[in-house]
Amino acid sequence: MIGYGFMGAAHSQAWRTAPRVFDLPRDVEMAVIVGRNQEAVADAAAKWGWQESATDWRDIVTRDDIDIVDIVTPGHSHHEIAIAALKAGKHVLCEKPLANSGEDADAMAEAARESSAKAMLGFTYRRVPALTRARDLIAEGKVGNVQQVRAAYRQDWLVDPEAPLSWRLQKDLAGHGALGDIGAHAIDLVQFLTGLSVTKVSGVIDTIVKERPVETERVGIAGKGGDEKAPVTVDDVAIFTGRLENGALAAFEATRFATGRKNELSVEISGDKGAIAFNLESLNELHVYDLTADELGQGFTRVLVTEPGHPYLEGWWPTGHMLGYEHAFSHQVKDFVDAIANDTIPTPTFDDGVQVQRVLDAVEASSDDDSRWVQI
Amino acid sequence: MIGYGFMGAAHSQAWRTAPRVFDLPRDVEMAVIVGRNQEAVADAAAKWGWQESATDWRDIVTRDDIDIVDIVTPGHSHHEIAIAALKAGKHVLCEKPLANSGEDADAMAEAARESSAKAMLGFTYRRVPALTRARDLIAEGKVGNVQQVRAAYRQDWLVDPEAPLSWRLQKDLAGHGALGDIGAHAIDLVQFLTGLSVTKVSGVIDTIVKERPVETERVGIAGKGGDEKAPVTVDDVAIFTGRLENGALAAFEATRFATGRKNELSVEISGDKGAIAFNLESLNELHVYDLTADELGQGFTRVLVTEPGHPYLEGWWPTGHMLGYEHAFSHQVKDFVDAIANDTIPTPTFDDGVQVQRVLDAVEASSDDDSRWVQI
Amino acid sequence: MIGYGFMGAAHSQAWRTAPRVFDLPRDVEMAVIVGRNQEAVADAAAKWGWQESATDWRDIVTRDDIDIVDIVTPGHSHHEIAIAALKAGKHVLCEKPLANSGEDADAMAEAARESSAKAMLGFTYRRVPALTRARDLIAEGKVGNVQQVRAAYRQDWLVDPEAPLSWRLQKDLAGHGALGDIGAHAIDLVQFLTGLSVTKVSGVIDTIVKERPVETERVGIAGKGGDEKAPVTVDDVAIFTGRLENGALAAFEATRFATGRKNELSVEISGDKGAIAFNLESLNELHVYDLTADELGQGFTRVLVTEPGHPYLEGWWPTGHMLGYEHAFSHQVKDFVDAIANDTIPTPTFDDGVQVQRVLDAVEASSDDDSRWVQI
Amino acid sequence: MIGYGFMGAAHSQAWRTAPRVFDLPRDVEMAVIVGRNQEAVADAAAKWGWQESATDWRDIVTRDDIDIVDIVTPGHSHHEIAIAALKAGKHVLCEKPLANSGEDADAMAEAARESSAKAMLGFTYRRVPALTRARDLIAEGKVGNVQQVRAAYRQDWLVDPEAPLSWRLQKDLAGHGALGDIGAHAIDLVQFLTGLSVTKVSGVIDTIVKERPVETERVGIAGKGGDEKAPVTVDDVAIFTGRLENGALAAFEATRFATGRKNELSVEISGDKGAIAFNLESLNELHVYDLTADELGQGFTRVLVTEPGHPYLEGWWPTGHMLGYEHAFSHQVKDFVDAIANDTIPTPTFDDGVQVQRVLDAVEASSDDDSRWVQI
Repeated sequence: MIGYGFMGAAHSQAWRTAPRVFDLPRDVEMAVIVGRNQEAVADAAAKWGWQESATDWRDIVTRDDIDIVDIVTPGHSHHEIAIAALKAGKHVLCEKPLANSGEDADAMAEAARESSAKAMLGFTYRRVPALTRARDLIAEGKVGNVQQVRAAYRQDWLVDPEAPLSWRLQKDLAGHGALGDIGAHAIDLVQFLTGLSVTKVSGVIDTIVKERPVETERVGIAGKGGDEKAPVTVDDVAIFTGRLENGALAAFEATRFATGRKNELSVEISGDKGAIAFNLESLNELHVYDLTADELGQGFTRVLVTEPGHPYLEGWWPTGHMLGYEHAFSHQVKDFVDAIANDTIPTPTFDDGVQVQRVLDAVEASSDDDSRWVQI
Repeated sequence: MIGYGFMGAAHSQAWRTAPRVFDLPRDVEMAVIVGRNQEAVADAAAKWGWQESATDWRDIVTRDDIDIVDIVTPGHSHHEIAIAALKAGKHVLCEKPLANSGEDADAMAEAARESSAKAMLGFTYRRVPALTRARDLIAEGKVGNVQQVRAAYRQDWLVDPEAPLSWRLQKDLAGHGALGDIGAHAIDLVQFLTGLSVTKVSGVIDTIVKERPVETERVGIAGKGGDEKAPVTVDDVAIFTGRLENGALAAFEATRFATGRKNELSVEISGDKGAIAFNLESLNELHVYDLTADELGQGFTRVLVTEPGHPYLEGWWPTGHMLGYEHAFSHQVKDFVDAIANDTIPTPTFDDGVQVQRVLDAVEASSDDDSRWVQI
Repeated sequence: MIGYGFMGAAHSQAWRTAPRVFDLPRDVEMAVIVGRNQEAVADAAAKWGWQESATDWRDIVTRDDIDIVDIVTPGHSHHEIAIAALKAGKHVLCEKPLANSGEDADAMAEAARESSAKAMLGFTYRRVPALTRARDLIAEGKVGNVQQVRAAYRQDWLVDPEAPLSWRLQKDLAGHGALGDIGAHAIDLVQFLTGLSVTKVSGVIDTIVKERPVETERVGIAGKGGDEKAPVTVDDVAIFTGRLENGALAAFEATRFATGRKNELSVEISGDKGAIAFNLESLNELHVYDLTADELGQGFTRVLVTEPGHPYLEGWWPTGHMLGYEHAFSHQVKDFVDAIANDTIPTPTFDDGVQVQRVLDAVEASSDDDSRWVQI
Repeated sequence: MIGYGFMGAAHSQAWRTAPRVFDLPRDVEMAVIVGRNQEAVADAAAKWGWQESATDWRDIVTRDDIDIVDIVTPGHSHHEIAIAALKAGKHVLCEKPLANSGEDADAMAEAARESSAKAMLGFTYRRVPALTRARDLIAEGKVGNVQQVRAAYRQDWLVDPEAPLSWRLQKDLAGHGALGDIGAHAIDLVQFLTGLSVTKVSGVIDTIVKERPVETERVGIAGKGGDEKAPVTVDDVAIFTGRLENGALAAFEATRFATGRKNELSVEISGDKGAIAFNLESLNELHVYDLTADELGQGFTRVLVTEPGHPYLEGWWPTGHMLGYEHAFSHQVKDFVDAIANDTIPTPTFDDGVQVQRVLDAVEASSDDDSRWVQI
């Protein structure tokens, strides 16, 4: 695993847990964790259960005893690491966003297509059981023809003007701001759930707090910074509309300024036979509307997606015992290992990531061009 | 009262109820109801408690014994009736939208400014107690500087492709579709709650079902039509972003294709000190977030706006006894009669209606111009 | 109408509204309102739209031009008024509780059975559309065999120890406290919804604040009292379990000390084929669980009971426009007038009231006897 | 660890995770797992990451290299194992219920008091962060004097009459049914949250489905059984009222027949200064009512208990990232290891378990004695 921030913790938990919960076709060993700060990464290794730590990923991704490279670094470094690993024949699990530019993303997708190894992108929310279930229902035709979509990812951790200028707020490191970090999830989810691509977008991005305190030390999560300030070079908020390939409109919002909303990823897919609605703040619930039911009995049905027959639930607890945020990471490990063992193509692919990257870039281009529609 | 559709029923209920619930400074008599179909309007008069019925509004709006003209006809006729009534010195309560075109709206606003009589526009939701309360809280600074807004009005009665082509779906009668009928409420609410005007917009409107069965008879509410079909000439869905005068972005959505959402008018105002959230499907509740509270105790507080000290509640039931849709109409009557008696200017004014009309027209213009921003 | 407190306002609203909303088979005139304080009742008459006021109900209930007597006084006076009115051949609508003692209640029920006139008891919540709908669904077998029930009515207006000693807190006037005032609704609802009688109970009642300030003047709703205090002679809270005639257990709670709960009447009926759940704080919603549906799709469906085909909705607004507390009173008027015109027996009958009264008395008897089960 | 059913999986997950998430003062090794079926327990060891497996707990609890014995077997065996382990000086973590009889429970508590080792009981829900937080708020006086309590634990997995006769439905193995299995959690929570003991109870227990198919093989979770049927010897539902030591009444319900409720543990504590409400189906939320706040702004505040400063959150994800069911087990491991290292007394103690056991026995005694109150 390359990287050891918040995502490193989540991925470590998944590598440790998945083999104990699911019947994986392969044994998993947590071999090496890599980070630039020798002491910090050694601590992370000890804490999270990795056998070794190292400071240069180049030494690791070619090692014979390494089969899988899991990349959880900031987006700007994905490109170099992933391509090197794939060229070395290693299977690659890469955190989103795929890359910080369309060019880098294309190169990564090409490397993935050319490699005999497997490549998978970490749009983890696809594997929240309620969302996997939603995708299945939509694929079965339960909402009918998709006619309208809304998706939003709303947080509020930047409302405080003293929240520091972390790497997530610097364009050269993060690529995009709220748009790329959380808006990307909303875009991927809509495409995943409906099976329809976004073909063009019109939108606007904005930076509400223009400069912030420079961080004095590395922090995984936003903390208070020092006196010195520097410009925020990414967006705080993005509002955009997409046209799906079947003609339906999709309203998107990504923001870190939705006061009081901590981690609200919500999506609603409306069709001519029904609808589904989901909110990450109630992540075990899927709300399903059946327009073909008796008219006097119609309503959103709150399905607790914790039944043994629901996706991924075979590994967990009895009915009604709630799953949390990190469970989807274990599902990701399970599916990735399954794909390696069965020689199938794991999804989301790097091509899926390229598509999302293109949407992100198109939103930014639209915003720069008076919000005119930009083709993807 | 001119008109006798669904809005006629709601306004009649209000004229009948307000004097019995509030202490009005003037006696109210329900004199004449006007409609083109003599028999139907006579039935409406008998049913709703009007003393007389008539078929030509021109005969009525100049009658000496008439003080107030309440206009609840489709939007295209507001212009002529309202101006005639105002010129005759009658106080005018006019249902929204003010008019179907900016030109007509301007003329009406001018007539209102020139008349000694009072003119008031029926953006009734301003008088849902939870929303009146929200406006007060925002005015007191409880959300601080408004940084982001979202507002949506979502219904689903057009998902059925056999829903008939009522007047609401014909551009010459209704002016706009979902945008003007329900989107107008969302726009007015945002401006009312924040005290900030929308200064420019970028957006898109769309018609999902292009033609529908022609209605064979007048119906107040959507029913099934016949075999003949004709084009829908207004929008089914409108998605747009507005820039408020303080620079904040506001995401808007108006749709009649949100499967399963019957009458969901939702609004959320996010500021640097707090937030408020409201949903018409829970119309007695206001959700308030206080960012200045103890960090570990922060959350949205669900306030049941049914306390005796809450707006308009002095007239109703004890704490915790729910109000419904039509109560806001009684509050409208109360405030209108109060303004007449006290010689104050009732709000929303026709100028407020002009402003909303301009936003509607700008959204349509933006949609026609590749969603570029249009100044208001 | 005899009485002019809070219930007087609600009933007046209903008599005024029902003929304007529904097609009643008879014309309704609001003739006389009666109260002991001449000035106050004259004010009430003027405010609420009664043609006359009077101070002695005895003069009224025998008048030839009076057909219906609506009793909204405190419970201790129902007995005398209702029997006199029924003997005079007047139709009687009587607010709950039927009486303050089983003996009085029995006499009233007998008078009702012997009279040619109609008698109806004001358990108004039966006519909240969501609850009428719930009854229909249960009668159709949608929940199957009822296996378990819970019902609670929870308020908090007595948490304040300075809330005054209103008539509702005095045993000679009110009969019971929370048990009779609000617990009675919970009991009636359970019996109404399931069609099953409570056959025995075990329970406890308690008075949390033992004495309160004496009221210095008549107030309809709790206000602050003076310095003098006197004992509270009724219960503040009642917790009891009932056995239904099919053997199922029902857990009941009635309290005025549920801090933060303003008017929460909640009921849940669990059967071997499904369940229904309702909460008066969301009175337009019925939550329905179908145990016979596909296992992976089961959940509570939130039905917005505002469709034209739902009970009583034909008179009101389009789908999704919320009803409030007082609408059920209009439905009560409608059904009462229908029953009179059609010569059918309106429900709830006085016998239903006797049954509820017996349950109340049995709860109190059980509480006095170490909570042993008491047969009804 | 002795036992390897559903609780074995949950405890294994906790032993594996806690050291990776929290900074534990001691290293933890997962040494031996014990079960009677040699093959099955060996599988469990491999799956869950235990170094060894064994079939006789007697061989294990005295081993020198074992410091901690974690007991997750059915209740009837807790007594013998725990006492042997404590006598051997091993620290004991014992799943609830402490024992199947008051006598056994007393003996265990005595062994715990006499041992130099630590003993802790697995009322794990105390360590759901929202509930730990609720306890802290109540201890700080935020709800004031506790005046009323309700707590319910409601499931529906026995509504199906073909659900098999698992050990949980046999009195000799499980002690009590819904009462002991889930009602015990409700009792413990009320005592934990309020800091007040239940001093007497009146209640009723009932068995709705009297006989069920005999299980043909060991299953951890309810599955379908065979043709042969045998009597259910424990309760399906328990409804009881408790008197707390300060005089407040507490309404309890425990049921496996609440159709549609999968795992609903709900608790509400009402005081003279505020209230708290919690529901396990939304386990990251705590609803807090502040009666001392501005009257017009009062309401239940939905606090997402996922802030870094909330209990146990220092080990997990950023704000707004949801925890699930099993996290509380990791918190239990953390606190148990902390107590061992710091030589403090971990809670809940075995004495706490004895107290809950006494309440359970008193409920059963009350039910057997016509629901009369039974002193604890």
